[in-house]
Amino acid sequence: MPNTETTTNIDVIMQQAFDAFNQYKKLPSQKHAAFLETIADEIEKLRNELVPVANEETNLPAARLNGEISRTTGQLKMFASLITEGSWVEASIDTADAGRTPPKPDIRKMLVPVGPVIVFGASNFPFAFSTAGGDTASALAAGSSVVIKAHPAHPKTSALVFTAIEKAIKQSGVPQYTVQHVTDTSNETGKALVTHPRTTGVGFTGSFAGGKALVEYTRQREIPIPVFAEMSSINPVVFYPDTLNKNAKALAAQYAASITLGVGQFCTNPGLLLGIKSEGFDNFLQALGEEITKVQPQKMLHSGICSSYKKGLAEMQAQQGLQVIAQSSAAVNDMEAGSLIATVSANNFLANKHFTEEIFGPYSLAVICDDKAQLIQCLQSLKGQLTSSIMATEKDIEEYADVIEVQHTLAGRIMLNNAPTGVEVCASMVHGGPYPATTDARFTSVGTTAIKRWVRPICLQNFNDNMLPDALKNDNPLGILRLVNNVYTRDAVGK
Amino acid sequence: MPNTETTTNIDVIMQQAFDAFNQYKKLPSQKHAAFLETIADEIEKLRNELVPVANEETNLPAARLNGEISRTTGQLKMFASLITEGSWVEASIDTADAGRTPPKPDIRKMLVPVGPVIVFGASNFPFAFSTAGGDTASALAAGSSVVIKAHPAHPKTSALVFTAIEKAIKQSGVPQYTVQHVTDTSNETGKALVTHPRTTGVGFTGSFAGGKALVEYTRQREIPIPVFAEMSSINPVVFYPDTLNKNAKALAAQYAASITLGVGQFCTNPGLLLGIKSEGFDNFLQALGEEITKVQPQKMLHSGICSSYKKGLAEMQAQQGLQVIAQSSAAVNDMEAGSLIATVSANNFLANKHFTEEIFGPYSLAVICDDKAQLIQCLQSLKGQLTSSIMATEKDIEEYADVIEVQHTLAGRIMLNNAPTGVEVCASMVHGGPYPATTDARFTSVGTTAIKRWVRPICLQNFNDNMLPDALKNDNPLGILRLVNNVYTRDAVGK
Repeated sequence: MPNTETTTNIDVIMQQAFDAFNQYKKLPSQKHAAFLETIADEIEKLRNELVPVANEETNLPAARLNGEISRTTGQLKMFASLITEGSWVEASIDTADAGRTPPKPDIRKMLVPVGPVIVFGASNFPFAFSTAGGDTASALAAGSSVVIKAHPAHPKTSALVFTAIEKAIKQSGVPQYTVQHVTDTSNETGKALVTHPRTTGVGFTGSFAGGKALVEYTRQREIPIPVFAEMSSINPVVFYPDTLNKNAKALAAQYAASITLGVGQFCTNPGLLLGIKSEGFDNFLQALGEEITKVQPQKMLHSGICSSYKKGLAEMQAQQGLQVIAQSSAAVNDMEAGSLIATVSANNFLANKHFTEEIFGPYSLAVICDDKAQLIQCLQSLKGQLTSSIMATEKDIEEYADVIEVQHTLAGRIMLNNAPTGVEVCASMVHGGPYPATTDARFTSVGTTAIKRWVRPICLQNFNDNMLPDALKNDNPLGILRLVNNVYTRDAVGK
Repeated sequence: MPNTETTTNIDVIMQQAFDAFNQYKKLPSQKHAAFLETIADEIEKLRNELVPVANEETNLPAARLNGEISRTTGQLKMFASLITEGSWVEASIDTADAGRTPPKPDIRKMLVPVGPVIVFGASNFPFAFSTAGGDTASALAAGSSVVIKAHPAHPKTSALVFTAIEKAIKQSGVPQYTVQHVTDTSNETGKALVTHPRTTGVGFTGSFAGGKALVEYTRQREIPIPVFAEMSSINPVVFYPDTLNKNAKALAAQYAASITLGVGQFCTNPGLLLGIKSEGFDNFLQALGEEITKVQPQKMLHSGICSSYKKGLAEMQAQQGLQVIAQSSAAVNDMEAGSLIATVSANNFLANKHFTEEIFGPYSLAVICDDKAQLIQCLQSLKGQLTSSIMATEKDIEEYADVIEVQHTLAGRIMLNNAPTGVEVCASMVHGGPYPATTDARFTSVGTTAIKRWVRPICLQNFNDNMLPDALKNDNPLGILRLVNNVYTRDAVGK
């Protein structure tokens, strides 16, 4: 059976994934790292083929797609570096004390992979959050096998990326079914994958409805598994008075760019702008409106997203108290979307939950509050978010410390004077946040710690040194950082 | 309203918990640590009162209760040390690079507490897993407020421990409602606590039915929260041929003690003993039987547990193929339980899932396998466990590497030549394991990393140094270990 599977023979696929896992997990980290590097190299070789195919399927421009390919190969290499360094396994050693009453046994702990992982590709990142994207890279780095469900909006791109993975599998000598590609896009196939007994984890980036459906499916399992779904966020931005007073025009330019970047098709798109009624806020909104009207309508990823966007806008415009302050010129075809900025009073906002709905696209709603108390009330009414931005001067930061404190509780990433779009791939990134931004605020889907989604700790008690994995051996042959008798060290035990 | 609450006014309690959390979390770690130390000191002062009250309520002997009080105060102090050292927050810093295209922002990450935690006391550990036990200690260390639901089997003990907490609250100057005590023991109260919007996490140690009910309750929430339930485990022990051949009598003595320790009322009680048919295994079982018959019946924790044990035994004895090989003399009253050892062939074991049911008490079932293949099959048929013990010589370890590999996948803690009872409280402990041993194999309820259950990471982007929490400031005023630009260091940033 080929790795690429278009039937719904999920039992066969998952058994292959399980058998591959049991071999793959035993390979040394260098092998895993070399595999990830080779995937990156093979994708790089395909760059010139990938860009036009993805452009055709997603309407994303070549420059963006090229950047996204670089991000994807960068992520693969980042995880290769992480596991080559090796300390990510959180090795911890408590040595024996035979003299204690009762005698204290030797106990050693580390993180180990759990089993096959299902990765659902995202429509808005055909490379970086899809076939060989962050979920796949982090799962392979952890030592898991992966079954990828290709996104229906870019099947050719996904298949082409998968050819790079297949080449890397052969070249690296990892088990044939370490990564498999399922192109059958029915909901039934998705359900069969996440409910299969061999499946041990799920990575998903997409809509709230999609993520919630996966969670519901897994609730039918006898053995629960984690679903890491990154779903829905309106990324509130608070514009504080002093900065509005001093920087209205610059802020407008910064946010017009952020709102319309990639036709607004980012989970970190700033969909909610909050401020206290003032001349500064008025000036900002006017300038933002002027910037937005300059932006020409652009093609969205696919017609489904575009029609959802237009339907979302129409529903939003029908809400009591919403006032459109600026929009792009009308779109010329049904794939194109124009930008739209609207305002609403905090009173109307607080009275109607619909205003907090995400509209995926270049839309943003400004909430005009009467005072600080109402601003806090608006923030407290929000659900969990990926990001929360603080646009403020030093003076604002001092005067509005209590509001900023509320901003900290809302999201996984809190920014000062940055727009939320642009997610840095690094160890310190949290691309995650309280529900419904994600299903599990304790994890991130971007950055090195994304690897922690696919592992569990085990502890080994009273083992002989020669039975221990390298990470836990006395000599510390991997040279990793370990917690030995409550002290962090790279030293051998007993040295 | 007093901290001790016997009504079901859960809304008031949870709002108090939330308000207390918002103050408590802002206190420096030294304050949290001092609070934990003071709770320990106040419990120590009550030791002589606590032991007879707990003995009356639980039938546990004074020596055990004294040991458990020491463990409880030890845990509180361990978490105080952990947060005083401070590196547990996993601080991570990626500094800015203005020269990169696009410019790289400064990004810093750490763990922060999430909100009020509900702790359900356990019947079998009136101190160490109850009112001021590991769940409470780890949550307070993380910066959470705590609402304790007292266990109905030892309400006086719980109330008395809570007086120590109340004294510590006053002495330490932490918010009055940082810890609250709910003594209403109805299921409705438990449900109201875990479904309350202000609740952000649940710690539970008890039966599978109890843990599952809590999970079901939380599924009714709009915003999901983690339930950390440690539920059910039969702690399989594999006795390999060479060690049986050489050490049958010593093994029998070791396991008779482990099976009957504390009238078998431990989640780590060895309920399943597996081996390959041999003279050694026969000798072991015979010697085990002899040891077991010497053990006098003893009082269990309460009559409910005792009647469940007897009902469980009766049901098990009715299963096809079960053969009782030894039991204690008959119990003299309905609080007392005798020990029982039975055997079953692997064929019968594999044919009937009932044999894998946990019977909470001094019972163990020996599974007699025909060969290695059948032993592997038996292990693969098991659900997730807290522990998995390997009783083996060097020769066994070499010859049975494939069986041992399966043992690694079953549990959170894997032991060589140790009995599973006795859970060391230390950094490297994993008291957890795949479902249904716990609801979440990624966490432990014993040891310092238990603190990770009550936190989430946040990242702060482009913050001024003076806005950052101490853990993330350039100068590293806490002197903690941090990951700075992918290097672990205690140095200041830029040094």
